[in-house]
Amino acid sequence: MSPAYPLASLSSSNLFFSPLPPNHEPPAGKANHGRYMLTIPWSAASGHELAFDPLSGVLQYAVTCFEGMKCYKTDQGDLRLFRPEKNFDRFKRSAARLGLPNKWDNAELVDLLCKLLALEAPLVPTGDGSNLYIRPTLLETSEGYGIKETAFASEALLYVVTTLNLGKGLYASSEAPGKGIRLDACRDYIRAWPGGTGSYKLGANYGTVSVAKKPGFAMSLWLHSHDGEDYLSEAGAMNVWIIKQAADGYLEFITMGLDNGIVLPGITRESLIELLNDHASGKSSVPLPGLPTKLRVVERDISMSEIVTSIEDGSLKGMFGCGTGVVVVQIGEIQYQDKIHKIPHNPLIQILRDTVTGIQRGKIEHPWSHKVPEWDGSGAEKDREEDNVLA
Amino acid sequence: MSPAYPLASLSSSNLFFSPLPPNHEPPAGKANHGRYMLTIPWSAASGHELAFDPLSGVLQYAVTCFEGMKCYKTDQGDLRLFRPEKNFDRFKRSAARLGLPNKWDNAELVDLLCKLLALEAPLVPTGDGSNLYIRPTLLETSEGYGIKETAFASEALLYVVTTLNLGKGLYASSEAPGKGIRLDACRDYIRAWPGGTGSYKLGANYGTVSVAKKPGFAMSLWLHSHDGEDYLSEAGAMNVWIIKQAADGYLEFITMGLDNGIVLPGITRESLIELLNDHASGKSSVPLPGLPTKLRVVERDISMSEIVTSIEDGSLKGMFGCGTGVVVVQIGEIQYQDKIHKIPHNPLIQILRDTVTGIQRGKIEHPWSHKVPEWDGSGAEKDREEDNVLA
Repeated sequence: MSPAYPLASLSSSNLFFSPLPPNHEPPAGKANHGRYMLTIPWSAASGHELAFDPLSGVLQYAVTCFEGMKCYKTDQGDLRLFRPEKNFDRFKRSAARLGLPNKWDNAELVDLLCKLLALEAPLVPTGDGSNLYIRPTLLETSEGYGIKETAFASEALLYVVTTLNLGKGLYASSEAPGKGIRLDACRDYIRAWPGGTGSYKLGANYGTVSVAKKPGFAMSLWLHSHDGEDYLSEAGAMNVWIIKQAADGYLEFITMGLDNGIVLPGITRESLIELLNDHASGKSSVPLPGLPTKLRVVERDISMSEIVTSIEDGSLKGMFGCGTGVVVVQIGEIQYQDKIHKIPHNPLIQILRDTVTGIQRGKIEHPWSHKVPEWDGSGAEKDREEDNVLA
Repeated sequence: MSPAYPLASLSSSNLFFSPLPPNHEPPAGKANHGRYMLTIPWSAASGHELAFDPLSGVLQYAVTCFEGMKCYKTDQGDLRLFRPEKNFDRFKRSAARLGLPNKWDNAELVDLLCKLLALEAPLVPTGDGSNLYIRPTLLETSEGYGIKETAFASEALLYVVTTLNLGKGLYASSEAPGKGIRLDACRDYIRAWPGGTGSYKLGANYGTVSVAKKPGFAMSLWLHSHDGEDYLSEAGAMNVWIIKQAADGYLEFITMGLDNGIVLPGITRESLIELLNDHASGKSSVPLPGLPTKLRVVERDISMSEIVTSIEDGSLKGMFGCGTGVVVVQIGEIQYQDKIHKIPHNPLIQILRDTVTGIQRGKIEHPWSHKVPEWDGSGAEKDREEDNVLA
């Protein structure tokens, strides 16, 4: 089941027996470490670098969590974030799950993030689908390989890096033409289970399932089985929705509930639930043109057999994923048990996407869009021995 | 359920907005990264250090696996390893599960490890229970935060660090006096599940469950539930055994099977199975004094209700854990559903421990004990700009 990797020769040219310097004074509690370390790099990293203790919790035991956010530039040139406190609330929850620091002030952290974005302002693109992707990361830098009496990391690092997102066809190779992305419903690798970490944004949820990805499919549709049924949990790193015509004439927007702890509480997911509920109750100031008012949001389990059956009887009216990365993306096909299941196209999905991106890009004014204050960066690049410190 | 962490203030004195240097030439494919990075360290690491791309697979998505090994010094002063190829076989399996390089030559890697140990030879202690603990680690250094068309890491690093193990009472605070360690049977956190990664030695299996540890207990006894029963999987990072008197007069040594993929295939576990089977069949050259020949090794599921019932009816004759860290350790008590269950003491467990440590320390000659050749280190510390390279 595991994939093959090209033969890696232990050639002598890239091997290092690194000794600590003869005058090295070990820090308190670390006098018992070997002086030498053997390293065998397969290649080398570049750009920004961070240095870690080889026995640190992040390197040994995957004590790391993250968030994914985006910064948008409006047509007027100002920068916007989308509900950043929601990300940092979830970041705290993930951190607590790993015994990492989680008591910071979110308003302070949003302010620092805004300063970082102000420094990068010239870099942030304006094109549709373009943005600056933001990756806050929090990990254990302290030694974490032995059994500890307490689960708390004694040392940790929070950092935020950014990457330009130029909106180049992310799923071009795995999209059913004009009809959304293709998913492979995966039974061999189970992403999350009750009592596990599926509802937290931990690195450990992602690296352990990347081998499941099949060529030609945008991502895996994660399943978990009980009572002989295969239930959906997520797709890739998205929350999943189906649209169904109910017998009482209502159009149902159905997504997995959060109770069993195997689904990430997505911020786009939460926002869509609010927008749809507000639309149905008539109290929304955000128009969802074309969506019926006789609609209903339902949070419950969805099984693969329900999907197959409702394709056959015509009640399935569409399927989509949502998340910070994709915003809202239509699902076109699912491969399940060696069969391709085609999902009906639904133009309402594009309306949901346009509404969320409209809020994110400041085209629809909404309190969810957080304006990044301008900052001239004064003090940010003051001289310092190795790095530049914010005074 | 998540623990609290002391308030961490985002004080300005330890914040860094680090820019890349003005003349920085981004490596191919990385021209789209932000120039600045925000870092908020809670403290700092020391000693050996390794530098990583902040978006590397290990830091973002927990793409890291490891092995645990020990180097012993015999009374004659030579160094011994215990079945090192077994560790490196498992290391390859873990690496493949994560899409990391896994095609190296184990004999070459054992040879390199022996050279590292030869360099550290003066450091390796001789006292009983003392050894040099060895931590080979393999992780993804390449950028690993986006959806990739292939699961393979394009860059990886294997390193081996060592720590002196001086045999100081590892579980002193959580040992039932003279009767073994105390375990807390954990239902809130599930370590492993079918389709997950429990049978691989991944960092992700360890950091995500450390918060389960209760004070006063050596470690958690991991449970997984199906059909209304709580079954054992492992305890802390050990394999678990029970000793039971069977109705046919045989003494049964029972440990969980490997079929459902939730138990780590331990090397001590495998070695005990071989030693016990050989003893039962009479073909062993290793004496297990005091153990009956009417014994039987059984690999199957063990439920908590079986343990409770067999304590009551007197058929449970002992319980122990095994692994590289503990070798063989008696389990004295289990906390389960708010009740303490006392496990009968069994002197045979000490005999198993003495036999395995006798082989490991070269007191019992056996092919499992791998002698580390002497090496004068010539060439290992040749001058080099940053590190010393093995020419």
